[in-house]
Amino acid sequence: MKKTRIILAGPRGRMGKEAVTLIQETEAFELVAAVDRIHEGKLISDLEGMPNVQAPIFTDIEKCFQTVEADVLVDLTTPEIGRVHTKKALEYGIRPVVGTTGFSEADLAELKELAEEKGIGCIIAPNFAIGAILMMKFSQMAAKYFDDVEIIELHHDQKLDAPSGTGLKTAELISEVRETKKQGHSEEKEILAGARGATYDGIHLHSVRLPGLIAHQEVLFGGFGQGLKIRHDSYNRASFMSGVKLAVEAVMNIDTLVYGLENIIE
Amino acid sequence: MKKTRIILAGPRGRMGKEAVTLIQETEAFELVAAVDRIHEGKLISDLEGMPNVQAPIFTDIEKCFQTVEADVLVDLTTPEIGRVHTKKALEYGIRPVVGTTGFSEADLAELKELAEEKGIGCIIAPNFAIGAILMMKFSQMAAKYFDDVEIIELHHDQKLDAPSGTGLKTAELISEVRETKKQGHSEEKEILAGARGATYDGIHLHSVRLPGLIAHQEVLFGGFGQGLKIRHDSYNRASFMSGVKLAVEAVMNIDTLVYGLENIIE
Amino acid sequence: MKKTRIILAGPRGRMGKEAVTLIQETEAFELVAAVDRIHEGKLISDLEGMPNVQAPIFTDIEKCFQTVEADVLVDLTTPEIGRVHTKKALEYGIRPVVGTTGFSEADLAELKELAEEKGIGCIIAPNFAIGAILMMKFSQMAAKYFDDVEIIELHHDQKLDAPSGTGLKTAELISEVRETKKQGHSEEKEILAGARGATYDGIHLHSVRLPGLIAHQEVLFGGFGQGLKIRHDSYNRASFMSGVKLAVEAVMNIDTLVYGLENIIE
Amino acid sequence: MKKTRIILAGPRGRMGKEAVTLIQETEAFELVAAVDRIHEGKLISDLEGMPNVQAPIFTDIEKCFQTVEADVLVDLTTPEIGRVHTKKALEYGIRPVVGTTGFSEADLAELKELAEEKGIGCIIAPNFAIGAILMMKFSQMAAKYFDDVEIIELHHDQKLDAPSGTGLKTAELISEVRETKKQGHSEEKEILAGARGATYDGIHLHSVRLPGLIAHQEVLFGGFGQGLKIRHDSYNRASFMSGVKLAVEAVMNIDTLVYGLENIIE
Repeated sequence: MKKTRIILAGPRGRMGKEAVTLIQETEAFELVAAVDRIHEGKLISDLEGMPNVQAPIFTDIEKCFQTVEADVLVDLTTPEIGRVHTKKALEYGIRPVVGTTGFSEADLAELKELAEEKGIGCIIAPNFAIGAILMMKFSQMAAKYFDDVEIIELHHDQKLDAPSGTGLKTAELISEVRETKKQGHSEEKEILAGARGATYDGIHLHSVRLPGLIAHQEVLFGGFGQGLKIRHDSYNRASFMSGVKLAVEAVMNIDTLVYGLENIIE
Repeated sequence: MKKTRIILAGPRGRMGKEAVTLIQETEAFELVAAVDRIHEGKLISDLEGMPNVQAPIFTDIEKCFQTVEADVLVDLTTPEIGRVHTKKALEYGIRPVVGTTGFSEADLAELKELAEEKGIGCIIAPNFAIGAILMMKFSQMAAKYFDDVEIIELHHDQKLDAPSGTGLKTAELISEVRETKKQGHSEEKEILAGARGATYDGIHLHSVRLPGLIAHQEVLFGGFGQGLKIRHDSYNRASFMSGVKLAVEAVMNIDTLVYGLENIIE
Repeated sequence: MKKTRIILAGPRGRMGKEAVTLIQETEAFELVAAVDRIHEGKLISDLEGMPNVQAPIFTDIEKCFQTVEADVLVDLTTPEIGRVHTKKALEYGIRPVVGTTGFSEADLAELKELAEEKGIGCIIAPNFAIGAILMMKFSQMAAKYFDDVEIIELHHDQKLDAPSGTGLKTAELISEVRETKKQGHSEEKEILAGARGATYDGIHLHSVRLPGLIAHQEVLFGGFGQGLKIRHDSYNRASFMSGVKLAVEAVMNIDTLVYGLENIIE
Repeated sequence: MKKTRIILAGPRGRMGKEAVTLIQETEAFELVAAVDRIHEGKLISDLEGMPNVQAPIFTDIEKCFQTVEADVLVDLTTPEIGRVHTKKALEYGIRPVVGTTGFSEADLAELKELAEEKGIGCIIAPNFAIGAILMMKFSQMAAKYFDDVEIIELHHDQKLDAPSGTGLKTAELISEVRETKKQGHSEEKEILAGARGATYDGIHLHSVRLPGLIAHQEVLFGGFGQGLKIRHDSYNRASFMSGVKLAVEAVMNIDTLVYGLENIIE
């Protein structure tokens, strides 16, 4: 089997380090180069805390593309740099897998045209946590069969916003497929304000914040004499790597731009 | 082994029917009579939907006490009738196990004096669901070692009040043993109002209402790198019977009045 | 909106009674007749414990079909009777929704041909618990993205077999889409025999039996730094009714035979 | 308020580093010195990766005790060294909190005598995870009121033994307070061997192993129409620090040796 040759942009960030490990531990992947703001001419193995991978580091992405043969660019940099990298990669016929947000509709349209012109895949995903994406997908599917649903999201107590982005996104996805419904008893009464949580289009959301917790969410459906619960637990950053792996595999088999990992999941 | 002889007041109510079954199925218990508003002179087995138990029914509780030898009165009537029954039972030297609320402080003081004068036990319990009582007791214990706690109570969607009585009671019990604390990030912000739930003395409570659910509660504690969760599920009315059984056993071994099942649990 | 006119076969069984209630409470449904072994000429409302529905009862299904105009036959009888009813209904141009098992491959082939000849739908479903079907479907989908999975099924302690049929069926469905894998550490060791549960094609199954429980199942997936859990709780028989409702709606929009509710869920 | 002055033995181990952080972050604690095999004469702040704490490091524990005034010795070294340290600390009137195992009955007896002679406290605890200790304590308490219980422990898939030590310990503690009972249906049958898990004195234990998981346990009780679940989640090593903190506080208020954190929890 031919290995998928990967260039990694942003190897020293927290996600980048996990990606180096992922590529090294995946039989079918090979890290052939890295793009970084500094360390031109060094090897990944020269950097502190990195595994013994002999991939050269470039500060100029074009020089990297001209020097090294590769199939995929995994970009874990910032939105600004990511946009530039993605376009360059497509121009050089290298398939981008991009883990940053901040692309405008116009950006996406332009990149899509470019990908299709070159006949290669490009995947841009704001969220690589496959379990969270499946939770959202399943929740939307289940909402067609259960009229009543509530969302409980649980995070560490240093989180500022409530509800979480994933909680809100889940409510939006459910809202797309069900008719608006006021849940609970019609004369329901809060003895203490806030007990019934926040509501988004009739869907109740509850945010729990406790030290020790990381990032968790439960979507609870109820119907005639039964309940269905879908729960995702994210224990650490490595949870994103299964999505990166999936995207690298998928990008080799498509010839257009796909936005959002949920769209490559069947 | 000598069986505990029981008189049951209120045999036709929903709880009463379960109690008839409980007594019949418990080797060490014997139903010797019942007290009802009607059906004087009939037997339990004469009533529709009742098991084949030959216990006579009395409408006058004093006549019942004078006619039948018994150890314990299990009273599952109304608060008003329950108060009268309890006093009468103590006067006749029969140990009351009472499942109604509505006793005043003065009532309890008077009944306690009477119980101690007679040297017999009396148990009055507003809640017989042993699992719920243990959940509350454990929550109070755990609160001494975990500063942060949130309560999620989940009920069927026909429930009117939020949070539930048990949810509030749990928060009160926790509040007794911990110093008031504002949990969560100090600059925490609700993007949607109500997301962080209701608060009672700094403890957050969340009420979920879904069809299919019955009566459930989770108490979640969080601390350095760990979490502790205590969950009670009440699936049906029979859940009260384990508490009635426990109380009948306990009332034989005490010689004072005990209020609340939590006080006979070690 | 035109109501869907339903004939119910088997109205007095436990499922049948629930179905009467379901049809009565569903705006878009109308119970136009019932087929029973006895009670010819009576109305549903004449039977003890039935709601006030004026639908006539027939003991001869052909006479029923000839007398009453209907769209759908909901059959909740036995396998033997169900087979006969299904065929007759199709011949009369009435769409069957059948909740019994026991159809052979040959039966299904014959009925399918008949349905297509008449150009009408027919749904035969051994399991109407929509939540359980969704749990199985989601588990199979998730298994494509998570190599590691374990199943915990929890039932009341009067259940004879372990694991449960649903547990085994879930393992089979997962097994269809993933490559066989020996999970856990390669040198894993049971200090107490059985600790790691049963295995089906490398998937571990654990059966919990406790009084109080009804029928519950959790499917747990694990991957890089994350977990995904899908749980179904069946609290009582009414849980089947959401599936019956779905099938009645679906059978109006298809023109062939569908076996298994999972095949009408998108 | 007078701060509790602490000497920490073993500051560079994984637990030791957490303890340095704990002491620094706790208002009422003060790190006055450390005992290490190397680094004599340096300060904690001189060591790589350590916070800016100016506590001197000693390689000779006696010299440390003679030089620095302290209330408590927190010992996170090895069993061999821990035994020596504990005895020395007691001789110098410093209260030991020891997180190592490997003390014999004779060791404990000797140390207890010494502690009582000196009139000071000494706490030796093989497990500092307070949540796990509470889970075990609550399980033992609940077992008095629920005859039926099963244990599910869930760990990462690199764990070798099943069931876990905590799982077995929980079963032992439950077994101490309940009469042996064969749970489940008397004619229960395993269709797949191992489905009902391992048994310890009639208590069923199930071991789940999945990547992503860390260390978790659920103890499930079932009774008449209800269930009680106690779950502990250990997300990382920091989970031990709440127990260390509790022990330091407790050791100041006792004048004997206590073995096991469960014995200082009320």
